Amino acid sequence: MITVYSELHKLHHGRGEWMAGQLVPVFEMPRRAEIILSRVQEVRLGEVIGPQEFGLDPILRVHSPNYVRFLQTAWAEWSKLGRTHDALPYAWPVRRMNQGLEPQQIDARLGFFSFDAASPITPGTWTAVASSANVALTAAEQVRGGSRAAFALCRPPGHHAAQDYMGGYCFLNNAAIAAQYLRDQGAERVAILDVDYHHGNGTQAIFYPRADVLVVNLHADPRVEYPYFLGHADERGEGAGEGYTLNYPMPWGTEFPAWMERLEHACRQIQAYGPEVLVVSLGVDTFRGDPISQFRLESPDYLRVGERIARLGRPTLFVMEGGYAVEEIGLNAVNVLQGFEDTA
Amino acid sequence: MITVYSELHKLHHGRGEWMAGQLVPVFEMPRRAEIILSRVQEVRLGEVIGPQEFGLDPILRVHSPNYVRFLQTAWAEWSKLGRTHDALPYAWPVRRMNQGLEPQQIDARLGFFSFDAASPITPGTWTAVASSANVALTAAEQVRGGSRAAFALCRPPGHHAAQDYMGGYCFLNNAAIAAQYLRDQGAERVAILDVDYHHGNGTQAIFYPRADVLVVNLHADPRVEYPYFLGHADERGEGAGEGYTLNYPMPWGTEFPAWMERLEHACRQIQAYGPEVLVVSLGVDTFRGDPISQFRLESPDYLRVGERIARLGRPTLFVMEGGYAVEEIGLNAVNVLQGFEDTA
Ligand SMILES: [Zn+2]
Ligand SMILES: [Zn+2]
Repeated sequence: MITVYSELHKLHHGRGEWMAGQLVPVFEMPRRAEIILSRVQEVRLGEVIGPQEFGLDPILRVHSPNYVRFLQTAWAEWSKLGRTHDALPYAWPVRRMNQGLEPQQIDARLGFFSFDAASPITPGTWTAVASSANVALTAAEQVRGGSRAAFALCRPPGHHAAQDYMGGYCFLNNAAIAAQYLRDQGAERVAILDVDYHHGNGTQAIFYPRADVLVVNLHADPRVEYPYFLGHADERGEGAGEGYTLNYPMPWGTEFPAWMERLEHACRQIQAYGPEVLVVSLGVDTFRGDPISQFRLESPDYLRVGERIARLGRPTLFVMEGGYAVEEIGLNAVNVLQGFEDTA
Repeated sequence: MITVYSELHKLHHGRGEWMAGQLVPVFEMPRRAEIILSRVQEVRLGEVIGPQEFGLDPILRVHSPNYVRFLQTAWAEWSKLGRTHDALPYAWPVRRMNQGLEPQQIDARLGFFSFDAASPITPGTWTAVASSANVALTAAEQVRGGSRAAFALCRPPGHHAAQDYMGGYCFLNNAAIAAQYLRDQGAERVAILDVDYHHGNGTQAIFYPRADVLVVNLHADPRVEYPYFLGHADERGEGAGEGYTLNYPMPWGTEFPAWMERLEHACRQIQAYGPEVLVVSLGVDTFRGDPISQFRLESPDYLRVGERIARLGRPTLFVMEGGYAVEEIGLNAVNVLQGFEDTA
């Protein structure tokens, strides 16, 4: 399996995230991608290539022009005020506020285009996230070109980012951009399977009214876990998209057998949908040792995950999402890919 | 003029607020109220009395039961997790998220019931905010009993708090609770004049659909200033309340003559409305020396403000809101009250 990787991710290196009443060092750090790359090389998963440049068009098929412009200019606006620390928002347009009027001031714009303060914008953030989208698109091209699978070693991750807001370390929704690109290049039905510990609220929001992209999420119950305000079992899509969003929320402490039961059910739904291409939002923060998560998967379990996904028999694009047990992230993520590769 | 004051405000003393990418010492500190009290005593404004206890009923006429329960229990839920630092949220339900479903986990609940991370909840917060509401209600009783005016030396302030969320140092909306109480006790029309530097988004949201409480705000333009997402000139109420919300947003750098022009216009609208009682949300962060604000009023200007309000000739309840130039807050706030008292 080919891996697509760009060194440019290192340009995004936030110093702090706001979490549970404290500014803490960011869990989403460059070392995550480096460890995964090392493991890819160590097990000789396949060739590692750099991304091609796709420009803004495929990004703008998913994200609003105003939001993209914001991401491109936020650091400049922030540093114009003499601020040298990471840009983070501090107020948000919640219910009964004006949620549609784009404000002018940078603090307001940061809040308008986000839902938390966990996605620091740094001088290199735009370059890094644009490159991360290109990584996903390049891997999508591999799959479109006939490869059985490809691995987009994206960083920053993407699944919390919606049409017009960032959050949860995510800025551009790499998986959504790739899925839309595959649709635009001719695939009639695309399925996204999100196995990250956290609900992929951005991906769900983007495709919620649509039947041409099935979005399936396995994740911790949002009633007790971030991102809290999306990912409940009764969210099933709207309008033409009714029935094409599937959520499998699970309680804290979920062990692999129970998790795997949900994956089995989810895979049957995907099978029934019959997608031409499968996009996997691959987070491994379901790992028992993850510092911010509460599921209990073990490293060998990830081999089983890859095997089950392989048995769907679809051209498959793996897009890297979360995972914060940094030393084990390479083993866990690449186990999924090896389990896939080893299954005919 | 009688001042109502409670020592219990000191039980709310947040250590930090999240602002512009940093956790900074809170601007909204106990010393604010102490300095105002000293000035009240120094100029012999009148008797200082403690609050009566009004119980939850008048609070629940404005705030949702779930929100009040949240405020009462948040610290206990937070400290149950072994956390000893101030409780602050870190994710919020913005557009395309579920903005109606109350979550279970404390971090989620903090986000659900707020719009920023500037309102730290501490062990004594509920006691302090309930006492602050009682201060406003006790002063309202003075006015209802025939006093020409009364001063509710409220702390924490209230005008950013809506039916079911906190924000901007505010938890219970003291001015709204007092206005509603005056309505419930028989006043047919009440006007709220909010002269704080920041838009009173909570007060506006609470009375937006209603004609029986006129809400008039003079404030910094939300396109560039906190709270950013409410307080635009075109927000004028809805349904039966259409025309009973009036906003006077002003640019950064506004000097007193321009500010006073808006107050003059606002007062004429209030005169035309003919309220039986006037509630003034008295913030003095319009002061030139305010550390987080950008208007340029000088201390003697506040005498003029009080004089103009007095010429409305209505029974008037002053409710303390913001003002963060702590050493001058007593002079500035009490100047408004003295200007009022000295005008027949
Ligand atoms: Zn995650
Ligand atoms: Zn203010």
